[in-house]
Amino acid sequence: MNYKKTDADDLRFFQSAIGEAFVYTDPAALEKYSKDETDGCSFAPEAVLKPRTTQEISTILKYCHEKHIPVSPRAAGTGLSANSLCVLGGIMLSIERMNSILQIDERSLQVTTEPGVITEALQNTLQEKGLFYPVDPSSRGSSFIGGNVACNSGGPRAVKYGVVKDFVLNLEVVLPTGEIMWTGANTLKNSTGYNFTQLFVGSEGTLGIVTKIVLKLLPYPRHNNIMLAPFKSMEDAGAAVSAVFRAGIVPSCIEFMERDAITYVMNFLGDVTVPLADDTQATLLIEVDGNDLELIQKDCEKIYEVLSTFDVGEILFADSDAQKTDLWRMRRNIAYAVKKTNVTVEEDTVVPRADLPELLQHIKAVGKKYNFRSVCYGHAGDGNVHVRILKDELSDDYWKNEVPKGIREIFEKVVELKGTISGEHGIGWFQIPYMDIKFSKEQIALMRGIKKVFDPHHILNPGKIFATE
Amino acid sequence: MNYKKTDADDLRFFQSAIGEAFVYTDPAALEKYSKDETDGCSFAPEAVLKPRTTQEISTILKYCHEKHIPVSPRAAGTGLSANSLCVLGGIMLSIERMNSILQIDERSLQVTTEPGVITEALQNTLQEKGLFYPVDPSSRGSSFIGGNVACNSGGPRAVKYGVVKDFVLNLEVVLPTGEIMWTGANTLKNSTGYNFTQLFVGSEGTLGIVTKIVLKLLPYPRHNNIMLAPFKSMEDAGAAVSAVFRAGIVPSCIEFMERDAITYVMNFLGDVTVPLADDTQATLLIEVDGNDLELIQKDCEKIYEVLSTFDVGEILFADSDAQKTDLWRMRRNIAYAVKKTNVTVEEDTVVPRADLPELLQHIKAVGKKYNFRSVCYGHAGDGNVHVRILKDELSDDYWKNEVPKGIREIFEKVVELKGTISGEHGIGWFQIPYMDIKFSKEQIALMRGIKKVFDPHHILNPGKIFATE
Repeated sequence: MNYKKTDADDLRFFQSAIGEAFVYTDPAALEKYSKDETDGCSFAPEAVLKPRTTQEISTILKYCHEKHIPVSPRAAGTGLSANSLCVLGGIMLSIERMNSILQIDERSLQVTTEPGVITEALQNTLQEKGLFYPVDPSSRGSSFIGGNVACNSGGPRAVKYGVVKDFVLNLEVVLPTGEIMWTGANTLKNSTGYNFTQLFVGSEGTLGIVTKIVLKLLPYPRHNNIMLAPFKSMEDAGAAVSAVFRAGIVPSCIEFMERDAITYVMNFLGDVTVPLADDTQATLLIEVDGNDLELIQKDCEKIYEVLSTFDVGEILFADSDAQKTDLWRMRRNIAYAVKKTNVTVEEDTVVPRADLPELLQHIKAVGKKYNFRSVCYGHAGDGNVHVRILKDELSDDYWKNEVPKGIREIFEKVVELKGTISGEHGIGWFQIPYMDIKFSKEQIALMRGIKKVFDPHHILNPGKIFATE
Repeated sequence: MNYKKTDADDLRFFQSAIGEAFVYTDPAALEKYSKDETDGCSFAPEAVLKPRTTQEISTILKYCHEKHIPVSPRAAGTGLSANSLCVLGGIMLSIERMNSILQIDERSLQVTTEPGVITEALQNTLQEKGLFYPVDPSSRGSSFIGGNVACNSGGPRAVKYGVVKDFVLNLEVVLPTGEIMWTGANTLKNSTGYNFTQLFVGSEGTLGIVTKIVLKLLPYPRHNNIMLAPFKSMEDAGAAVSAVFRAGIVPSCIEFMERDAITYVMNFLGDVTVPLADDTQATLLIEVDGNDLELIQKDCEKIYEVLSTFDVGEILFADSDAQKTDLWRMRRNIAYAVKKTNVTVEEDTVVPRADLPELLQHIKAVGKKYNFRSVCYGHAGDGNVHVRILKDELSDDYWKNEVPKGIREIFEKVVELKGTISGEHGIGWFQIPYMDIKFSKEQIALMRGIKKVFDPHHILNPGKIFATE
């Protein structure tokens, strides 16, 4: 691809389109928007644009389509795969000003929102009306709902409620040509032509920029119970997960944290402590929710019985809202805690739930072979384990050239187990080197073909998901 | 498109590929496969092929791709939009012999099945192991799971559990070029490139032929309660639906039947009777399921309270399994009952749940304007209403030329209410004339573009979803 570099004329056009104040070229802005949460990645944009309306985005994209200027859309920049960075130059289009919740439909249980609303803020506003949008990625306190849609985010509650794709009914998008369209309908059922909506969810801003989102909602569950179960072996913890479901219970969350994850996060937070016996290798954090407290308690008792058939330590039941909050703070802060102490890289493995023990065993074996430590944690109920690999004393050269071979061996196992190389982070730019493990050349060619239908000049978030030709 | 007509050489090739016994050209076979459940449609195939394996399908498609012979895949032929008929000639490829359940994974709660398994048979086999695949289109006693995937079928339980797309994890498909691929992974989360799986679900066999299906399962709920509530106005029944959800309850089904639907089906079945007061205009059939009978009863009481705030008649609670079965037989047989007495056409409208009363009012007003009767019934919890229009004494000419104008007015209202023109039947060939109400020319061009990526010679199920150019 031959792209045009942004020049003074282009900037003047952008300024006239969205207002001078919202086109940034100062070093501080370019520096800020050159990064996201991906370890060690930095690509400065040529300019940062912050449009406010769908129409403004349409004007920008139409222009860039004609001029062959790359455009990388950006939500909150919490991506872990360099999903939004300007890896091939061009401009960054931030949707941060598009941050209004447009309509809460309490009659049909739907919300229409702009993409720049912080996920947790959206959830809190809905909760005040007794409404529930359950998808809660760990980053929900800072990530935007639009970014969640772009990456098909998940989170702990996916195991009971599903991921973003299961809640998106309809999207307003601006195509790379500037055309504006709705992808679907505001309905729970839709069998009308190809599913544009599901094609856009998880396409990481490569097919169009999402400007309005219609989400399905549920009544807010009135109660929940939380328990923390320590295991003497990681594999046992993994096996217990599938046993809980087999007993007929669907918890709202069932999270896995290996021992190191807990010690890192307790050190990081300072004000949260859970008992951690010497022989504890991993813990499960289990939440059951619903409208009926008695039934929740019954389910918890049944879970207790199931867990007791394994070599489990003393199970902690959270007995106050404060304690529940603490346990979740613990779980949600693991990634930050580990990152803070070390150079790291996080992989987002996912396999069928029952194959978790085999995956965990393999991860540790690969770590031994390649001489790296890893901290594992994540959404055990979904078979989705985050593997944070630590650089420790490894040389830069080894980290760059040898460790990826180990990562490759982990991903090969994941695919052998009929899983995939990203459960909820997306591929972005960072994970492209591993795409051949999951997809054949022919499959990548199909993706490129779809991309070309929507984006003939390949201007939108180029260099993501697959390499630009 | 210039297609090749099947000749003796082609037939010899097919016979060598899948066995002589499975290539049919006799008039009885061609007649049988010229129809599905769509009213008044008939297109004879040039030959009917019944392959047994993925590899055989690949061989056939590769050949037809090279020769430009149209191929229409067919499941059980229960489609209501001529989804599988050979409208542009060519061969019919029936998947009826691919009818094995391949693997039930009780550890990860998944099933891998071939596409030719009857949906209800699959459900029953799973239920014996305590596993639940909830999607139950009315045709489930005869339709194949592969056809359900092709049309993204729904059914009564969609309101709580979702439609086919919410349960399909992974598909093995044969592309029109003969290439075989898996679309995704056997995981609950997947954020790895474009969502091929969701693109295939609901694409009505136009992008590839599904040869294996991996479905997510749930633990089978142990209990359910069913109630039947009569209303004096259709609009009240519609309004009560959204009030139930607003009260924080998610029933497993909430079905709508207008008075005429009930009288038709009682006459048709002969052995099922429900009380039907003179002033009853519509009824709601409500089911609540779960593992705890007490909680189910609590929810039913709450629903009773909500319904009582409307002008509702005496609510019937099913007090035996036999009565539950009867109520469902009633609901499931309405379409057959009405069809049997009249020339009819069924439309598959869907709107946001709370807009049901407005839609119902509009349907009846349009009927008055165009002088046709309609019988309305369907999945009120989803806002999905089937409108079966009766020919009665209308002239053939009026039926053919004037009634579609009324249908158009109904669909225009549906789209105005942010709904769509098919909730679960698909577009097939029969509904193409209405696609312009929902989609712009640009959107259809995008669908054509996607089609071309997968099927460059446009051989697979041509003339479906959009007209062939």
